[in-house]
Amino acid sequence: MARIREDASEISLDPDNWDEMRRLAHGMVDDAIARLQGLRDGPVWQPMPAATRQGFEGPPPAKGTPLDAVYADVTGTLYPYAMGNIHPRFWGWYMGAGCLTGALADFLAGVDGTNLGGGDTGAAQVDLQVTDWLRQMMGFPEGASGILVNAGSMANIVGLTAARNAMAGVDLHQQSVADIAAPLRFYASDQVHNCHMKAMNLLGLGAKALVRVPTDDAFQMDMDALRKAIQADREAGLRPACVIATAGTTNTSSIDPVPEIADLCGEEGLWLHVDGCIGAMFAIAPESRHLVAGIDRADSLALDLHKGLQAPFDVGCALVRDRRIHRATFAEDAEYLQVATRGLAAAEFLHDYGPETSRGFRALKVWMMLRQFGVETFGRMLDQTVAQARHLTSLVEKEPQLALMAPTVAAVVCFRHEPDGLDEAGLRAHNTEIMLRLQETGIAVISDTTLRGRHCLRVAICNHRTRSEDLDLLVAEVLRIGADLLQPA
Amino acid sequence: MARIREDASEISLDPDNWDEMRRLAHGMVDDAIARLQGLRDGPVWQPMPAATRQGFEGPPPAKGTPLDAVYADVTGTLYPYAMGNIHPRFWGWYMGAGCLTGALADFLAGVDGTNLGGGDTGAAQVDLQVTDWLRQMMGFPEGASGILVNAGSMANIVGLTAARNAMAGVDLHQQSVADIAAPLRFYASDQVHNCHMKAMNLLGLGAKALVRVPTDDAFQMDMDALRKAIQADREAGLRPACVIATAGTTNTSSIDPVPEIADLCGEEGLWLHVDGCIGAMFAIAPESRHLVAGIDRADSLALDLHKGLQAPFDVGCALVRDRRIHRATFAEDAEYLQVATRGLAAAEFLHDYGPETSRGFRALKVWMMLRQFGVETFGRMLDQTVAQARHLTSLVEKEPQLALMAPTVAAVVCFRHEPDGLDEAGLRAHNTEIMLRLQETGIAVISDTTLRGRHCLRVAICNHRTRSEDLDLLVAEVLRIGADLLQPA
Ligand SMILES: Cc1ncc(COP(=O)(O)O)c(C=O)c1O
Ligand SMILES: Cc1ncc(COP(=O)(O)O)c(C=O)c1O
Repeated sequence: MARIREDASEISLDPDNWDEMRRLAHGMVDDAIARLQGLRDGPVWQPMPAATRQGFEGPPPAKGTPLDAVYADVTGTLYPYAMGNIHPRFWGWYMGAGCLTGALADFLAGVDGTNLGGGDTGAAQVDLQVTDWLRQMMGFPEGASGILVNAGSMANIVGLTAARNAMAGVDLHQQSVADIAAPLRFYASDQVHNCHMKAMNLLGLGAKALVRVPTDDAFQMDMDALRKAIQADREAGLRPACVIATAGTTNTSSIDPVPEIADLCGEEGLWLHVDGCIGAMFAIAPESRHLVAGIDRADSLALDLHKGLQAPFDVGCALVRDRRIHRATFAEDAEYLQVATRGLAAAEFLHDYGPETSRGFRALKVWMMLRQFGVETFGRMLDQTVAQARHLTSLVEKEPQLALMAPTVAAVVCFRHEPDGLDEAGLRAHNTEIMLRLQETGIAVISDTTLRGRHCLRVAICNHRTRSEDLDLLVAEVLRIGADLLQPA
Repeated sequence: MARIREDASEISLDPDNWDEMRRLAHGMVDDAIARLQGLRDGPVWQPMPAATRQGFEGPPPAKGTPLDAVYADVTGTLYPYAMGNIHPRFWGWYMGAGCLTGALADFLAGVDGTNLGGGDTGAAQVDLQVTDWLRQMMGFPEGASGILVNAGSMANIVGLTAARNAMAGVDLHQQSVADIAAPLRFYASDQVHNCHMKAMNLLGLGAKALVRVPTDDAFQMDMDALRKAIQADREAGLRPACVIATAGTTNTSSIDPVPEIADLCGEEGLWLHVDGCIGAMFAIAPESRHLVAGIDRADSLALDLHKGLQAPFDVGCALVRDRRIHRATFAEDAEYLQVATRGLAAAEFLHDYGPETSRGFRALKVWMMLRQFGVETFGRMLDQTVAQARHLTSLVEKEPQLALMAPTVAAVVCFRHEPDGLDEAGLRAHNTEIMLRLQETGIAVISDTTLRGRHCLRVAICNHRTRSEDLDLLVAEVLRIGADLLQPA
């Protein structure tokens, strides 16, 4: 389809035939709508047959293929083997289900083409507006700054880098971590997401700089243990720098006692970073916002918009209370990046607020979705996920063969099938098999985890398409498969 | 448009009226095509009026707005104020121009919904296939690994983290940079992109760990100076760790002598990282590939697909020669991320190869574009940008009032208007004004830089829509504006 221009023999990637392209693109839209309308009737997920998988081997294509044939492979060999998180019965890990507006926005962003590294553009206004909206939604003060990044892990990295640099006592643009007078210590609960360990590695601090504080029965950070750890480190000549509070843990959606941690950080002069990838968005949900009270006191906050806000993957956001510190953490100067007072470059460099330079226009999907649905709809939808989790919890509690494995705080439910006569290892094998059969038959996708050594099924509801009866079905199927497995073969 | 389900009073973000949504989405496609067809007739860029800018202030929307009204703002207040990199006469910095297939792929990726953190999905196959195609296109050996990231800066961060961890002599997952026996030193030319300074900061090494090696008249790293710097550091008890060779510098697209640097790294036992964000893609261009000979010898290589490959923003890629080192750099374990042998989780975690966890399906645009156009078309298109840069260079050389400010190596041309009687400061002001007027009148977007203290205009051709006559027009307009500016007011 590449056009060899007859007049100048110069190539472009624009279509030869725009009408053909229009027809094909309309077809893509129609297929997408049909797919979304029919989601509930298909499997959540299905394994890819070996032959299909082998189709993905081989060298890069030297010659072109008509776009309609390429697209046929998207509908034929990709759509059927999607992760399934767009399906109403997907509750694996904690992922949003996306939405059509978000997908269309990604198309429009691609058409607009703008690079969000900086520049005086409409896209930059949207980017700034989205971060400012998120600032307000999270209750951060005016003047606080933010940056959209690809996901929650990077949002955490942004916050932790700001914490490290602010607490180092030396200029880490110039100096190394080895020049910090006393080793920095960060504190997080034993439920912290592993992206923080990755961050410690990336930042040159190492996991030993991350003190894992025990949690109580509700999987919340134990404040006494935190205080003692800080005290002990001070006595050992280390430098306590930052507490990472998790508002919504990955395992159980438990929420650390953020207000108490904020008080302690105030007293001790520590940076408070809140990992709100799962929980922060509940701040806009009328029934649930009490759960995350105090996150507005954080020095930095990581959010995931492809989770609670249902934007298609990927988009996350880091907010930093002190804009000056935020910018000082990342800004460098370069001679080919000259700020102008007029023209395209007459704007603040957005890349001064994160580790990235070029950035896509992922702000657009968040902006269009927030405008189309309004914050209130998202708030109600998030409350609905919590109500659905409570519904599931009550179903579990009613069934003698099912055991709830952790308190249900927000929208994650941990439980397992506990028939008589199975020891811990037997229960793990049994429940793993239940999970796998649910996945393999396309009934539902749930994941699993281990809590204090006990294996369990984990249902993470972050899905605007889920209806309560989907959870009724889940429980019925867990019981059915569980019983089947116990039949002598 | 949010649907309050009557039967269950549960909300979803799916449209009430799919037909309406279909009509609107078809209209988006039609508008996009009209926009791309008419690009050449509109301005490259235009400043946003103050009133439009003010429209982006205010609180987050509590209530929803019909999607067609939201979309009207996209066409009304965003499209007209796009960066302009999709326009044939955009040559600012070094950005790709995007293409419709890429934008449609971003839509399809959003519909598919898959999170590329891991999992047994069709999207994961595409992701792996794209990195493997890129590996082959770059001449990296079988078994080398890669990861798609949002952009070139992150691709460099991935490579430099692998270099740091591989050369540290301690396990940086556990230990800190302060535990490394002797301070690490990285070497890059004085033309290195500032994302490497940002990376040094992020990695806890600090800019002092990055030795800036002088360049010669052609802006290529001076090998003698590099050798001496390594020698001096060894004598000072520091630990030379990595040379960052730039294949295509941001200022002039000069290319460091990669084969010689590779030899030296071999002799000295150093990691070779190649920043190929601008230049590496020329490896697939028949006429230009000799420029980047030797990049296949790198231990790690950073690529940008939203530059040379014209994918819409954002997508970059890091390749690492030794898959084991690559994985060991980033992989952590977590109890809620349990690898299974069956089901959705029965696949390698892709997030073990980078700092990120969740990742969008940005692989799809690269996959669809490579398949539609074929590698050969991209190779010819890239050669075309070099030929166009040579054409511009010859125009500059023919004009007595224009001065070429650096040798044209690949597709970046540095020149300035040099009328008589202006000193260095005067020339800077004069050429800056030329650049701004080109931007403000929508004729062309070019950027500027400073080379060895001398200001110049910088034309970075990375645009499949540019035709040679666009560059003829540029030269004519530079001369016209330059002459206008010299008229007594
Ligand atoms: C608590 C928490 N923090 C951080 C992350 C990482 O977010 P992302 O996968 O968007 O990088 C997750 C992901 O599930 C999470 O649950
Ligand atoms: C040589 C070089 N390296 C790295 C980068 C950063 O790439 P990105 O903007 O995609 O993050 C650039 C950007 O122009 C570059 O020119």
